Amino acid sequence: MDQVIRQRLEALRKVMEKEGVDYYIVPTADFHNSEYVDDYFKVRQFLSGFTGSNGTLVVSGKEACLWTDGRYFIQAENELAGSGIELMRMQEEGVPTIEQYLKEHMEKGETLGFDGRVVDTAFGCRLEKELAEKEIRFRYEKDLADEVWEDRPGLPCHPVMVLDEAVCGKGAVEKMADVRRELSAKKADALLLSKLDDLMWLLNIRGADVECNPVALSYAYLTGTECFYFIQEGEVTRELREHAASCGITLKGYGEVTDFLRERGEKERVLYDGKNTSYALYRTLREKGECVDGKNPTELMKAVKNPVELANMEKVYLKDSAAVCKFIYWLKSNIGKIPITEVTAAQYLDDLRRNTEGCLDLSFPTISGYRENAAMMHYEATPECCKTLEPDGMLLVDSGGQYLGGTTDVTRTIVLGPISQEMKRHFTAVAVGMLQLSNARFLYGCTGRNLDILARGPLWNLDMDYKCGTGHGVGYILNVHEGPQGIRWRYMEGIGEAVIEAGMDVTNEPGVYIEGSHGIRTENVMVAKNGTKNGDGQFMYFDTLTFVPIDLDAIDPAYMEPSQIAMLNRYHAEVREKMAPFMTAEEMEWLKDATREIG
Amino acid sequence: MDQVIRQRLEALRKVMEKEGVDYYIVPTADFHNSEYVDDYFKVRQFLSGFTGSNGTLVVSGKEACLWTDGRYFIQAENELAGSGIELMRMQEEGVPTIEQYLKEHMEKGETLGFDGRVVDTAFGCRLEKELAEKEIRFRYEKDLADEVWEDRPGLPCHPVMVLDEAVCGKGAVEKMADVRRELSAKKADALLLSKLDDLMWLLNIRGADVECNPVALSYAYLTGTECFYFIQEGEVTRELREHAASCGITLKGYGEVTDFLRERGEKERVLYDGKNTSYALYRTLREKGECVDGKNPTELMKAVKNPVELANMEKVYLKDSAAVCKFIYWLKSNIGKIPITEVTAAQYLDDLRRNTEGCLDLSFPTISGYRENAAMMHYEATPECCKTLEPDGMLLVDSGGQYLGGTTDVTRTIVLGPISQEMKRHFTAVAVGMLQLSNARFLYGCTGRNLDILARGPLWNLDMDYKCGTGHGVGYILNVHEGPQGIRWRYMEGIGEAVIEAGMDVTNEPGVYIEGSHGIRTENVMVAKNGTKNGDGQFMYFDTLTFVPIDLDAIDPAYMEPSQIAMLNRYHAEVREKMAPFMTAEEMEWLKDATREIG
Repeated sequence: MDQVIRQRLEALRKVMEKEGVDYYIVPTADFHNSEYVDDYFKVRQFLSGFTGSNGTLVVSGKEACLWTDGRYFIQAENELAGSGIELMRMQEEGVPTIEQYLKEHMEKGETLGFDGRVVDTAFGCRLEKELAEKEIRFRYEKDLADEVWEDRPGLPCHPVMVLDEAVCGKGAVEKMADVRRELSAKKADALLLSKLDDLMWLLNIRGADVECNPVALSYAYLTGTECFYFIQEGEVTRELREHAASCGITLKGYGEVTDFLRERGEKERVLYDGKNTSYALYRTLREKGECVDGKNPTELMKAVKNPVELANMEKVYLKDSAAVCKFIYWLKSNIGKIPITEVTAAQYLDDLRRNTEGCLDLSFPTISGYRENAAMMHYEATPECCKTLEPDGMLLVDSGGQYLGGTTDVTRTIVLGPISQEMKRHFTAVAVGMLQLSNARFLYGCTGRNLDILARGPLWNLDMDYKCGTGHGVGYILNVHEGPQGIRWRYMEGIGEAVIEAGMDVTNEPGVYIEGSHGIRTENVMVAKNGTKNGDGQFMYFDTLTFVPIDLDAIDPAYMEPSQIAMLNRYHAEVREKMAPFMTAEEMEWLKDATREIG
Repeated sequence: MDQVIRQRLEALRKVMEKEGVDYYIVPTADFHNSEYVDDYFKVRQFLSGFTGSNGTLVVSGKEACLWTDGRYFIQAENELAGSGIELMRMQEEGVPTIEQYLKEHMEKGETLGFDGRVVDTAFGCRLEKELAEKEIRFRYEKDLADEVWEDRPGLPCHPVMVLDEAVCGKGAVEKMADVRRELSAKKADALLLSKLDDLMWLLNIRGADVECNPVALSYAYLTGTECFYFIQEGEVTRELREHAASCGITLKGYGEVTDFLRERGEKERVLYDGKNTSYALYRTLREKGECVDGKNPTELMKAVKNPVELANMEKVYLKDSAAVCKFIYWLKSNIGKIPITEVTAAQYLDDLRRNTEGCLDLSFPTISGYRENAAMMHYEATPECCKTLEPDGMLLVDSGGQYLGGTTDVTRTIVLGPISQEMKRHFTAVAVGMLQLSNARFLYGCTGRNLDILARGPLWNLDMDYKCGTGHGVGYILNVHEGPQGIRWRYMEGIGEAVIEAGMDVTNEPGVYIEGSHGIRTENVMVAKNGTKNGDGQFMYFDTLTFVPIDLDAIDPAYMEPSQIAMLNRYHAEVREKMAPFMTAEEMEWLKDATREIG
């Protein structure tokens, strides 16, 4: 593979030379800054061999460097070995940002190239600013990789579906009215919406253009009275046509958006979200007239789940938890008896989930990491290269589903046989952190930064950390990672934080990752609720949606306080009660033991 | 009193009318935005009767309103009763900020007055911005209160002292060099320094112009090669003259600063701190030339205590803790036997402290609040109006001293007799919070917002809160409240937070305040230290400086986890050991019992 990569990089360098480009940036994005992208957009993976979901490659005549975050350090090190590409560990001491790197390395007057459709405005503008004094020229109109990647897949194009109001809880017309009110408040005449999950949420439709993410490649341009929706002809169904007509939405071709923006006669002050609008579209807006960078008003509306969505989610999470319980029972009963690998284990779980009523898809490719593979946070086993499970050590399984009624995300680390005392200590600390956060009581006004230490503290007390956030928002029949809410600790000067609102859902997933040894993660999804309101303010708490046992084989109560043991017992009692209707007699026998009270 | 206040407000309104001022703002500040101010500057107290340390009065022809923060709601309600002044509870739902209030109430073209020397630039500029569309005229050159306040005290003027390097750990010349490097980095030619404690720190001098705060009214103008120091002639000692000469500092009159800035020939880009520079001086800078608003480079340097300062502080805190221990012993032994009031108790403690070797002054007026008086966070008892202590309930005592070697701040709530189970529950939650924060382990990069929940969580778990931060920085032989470090939970969009650096000191003072019933606060001072450094980062912890027993008569171990009981026992063992050399035999007998192990 490393030879293939070297050849591809050489081919790119030839195109760069021909085009007069000195440095070329390849981010991991589609035209909408989606977190996961269809194969068509996997240029960075094609050119570098690194398969993680986050990474940016920078290629010059002499060098090639890849930036990725802490989740992927171990994986990237393995996948980049021999390719000649240098790994840049983001946020580690002494590691420059991409902007800093380019500022240091580029010579005055050189040319920087990138496909402006896959670079977001915020990043493009940071580059403009940082490289201004070096008088760097920008070539953003051309996708150079297109010439190198001969058998590139086509742009994805799948028909969309329209969701019923009984599923969504609110009609598209009503949602558009909400957004229009926000536009007025922000003194904007129009909204250019590029973010795919926001588009799906706003119009109550779902697509299938990205694996596991039910989104359709599209744009919307919403004014006080009109809504233009840009989507590939091949994705338009009769159902969508009817829905559009009844909601006052004008359908247009996906490729028409740039010309539309350029030629639109009305003088409009256009709101766009610089983080999720491509640099290329932003340049069109900027050259045309007035535009204002701001958050999509849809972001917060989408994040706060409405009562219908919450009721559906509760049901869906029970079904989904049951699938995971059944999987754990199967795994524990069969380990050492039949051959099971990381991949076949994941397949068994995926089948259970897919056979669950209402399941549309997985919400992301299942992570099934055995022993030291679990130390790679987003490890994906392949049939060609995966470990066989033995009655020893632990298996980490992070998985989720898309259901007509919600999107799930759950991780359990399952004990398959003997484990060390150190592993028990780590596992118990992770469980305690997860339970402490689940049981948090806090005042309205808190953001994730106020709460993160509840989950992370038990590890900090051991001089350990996990190099990622503790939790992220989860979409509703949408992307498994959703903002703006999140549970993170790191202070970023000038970066806004989202106050936790009642109805927001968020994951709770502390972990331990010891390179070459073991990985542990325990993840539930929770919903923020309003509790007591008194003279001191509005108190809040979390309700847990996920009901799967936390493996008692790896819990050592000696590392727990009585209140923490009580939290675990309370949670397990709920698991037992809520899962009972879904279990066979045999499974129930096991579940009773797996959720037994400890002391 | 309320009639006197009404008369004073009427007198002010007459002057306002004469001067054509429609709304007049009276903040609580000297010319340097100091937190505590000398009597000369207590215009807001003179006009409103409210004696708290934070408050802003706004007077119009019809209305008068006073804004203050949560610490003072109860006290302000009492003190404003009958004055006709409306209390505006800052940060409560539905309460406008001063800017919002003025924007709502002022008519187009009206005139807003204030003494521009006691309004900081940031506030002045916010007013300019908010009131721009109303075309409000600003009259900031005149102090209208001067005409109303007939027997106003004179501007304070006390001789300054120069500190030895063995006390400071670093010479003024070296400190100025550090600041000059920061100025270069910020591309500024000069620094206008208005903040008094920063000035004292930079030049290694101390004054006596504000009660309890060893600062001298002064300004400095520091360039790459020069330093001009503006101070009243009556404050200049021979010692200061020699110090100035040896450090290359030019002394000038305090009143000369405005003319100096206006007439200075050099074209200089002047850095000033908008939060602490008066609006009047800022207008001088703005009209003269280029100026840039930024933090004083001295702020962070002063906050991180150097090894000499830390070593001195350790010694000083032992002596100071011993004074508080002796006081508690005296109080517990004599309650019910001799007459003691809130005031005489405070006097006994103040005398103990003042008689301690190296003590220069108190660091703030001792707060001695019995029973429900303790619910007022910054209550100050007066001989005319104070409670007599009985062998019943609790006394809260918050106190501190200025020593040649550090500034202290400590609060204990002392049980004098029977207390309710609810009080024990509250007291125990406060102690647990204080201990949890003291025992925090965290990664470098945390700010106070990451840690606040450790102290506040035990109260949030009871659906209770305290309406203030958990901790503040403490000066070194300087102001007892010092930034930028602090332990607070509330998210303020756009407001920067200070990362906790090794060597920063901070108080740890959770509390419970039940209006009309009781108040509890337990406060230690801690210093942040570097712990383990490994692949996960630089871990940090706190060392505690304060060693005074936490009253076991109010602790109910039933509300504590084993680890929390262990923390308390560990702390008490340290108190016993460190205080032993300072105690008489009788005191030691008591201390052994007061710090006994509980289980």
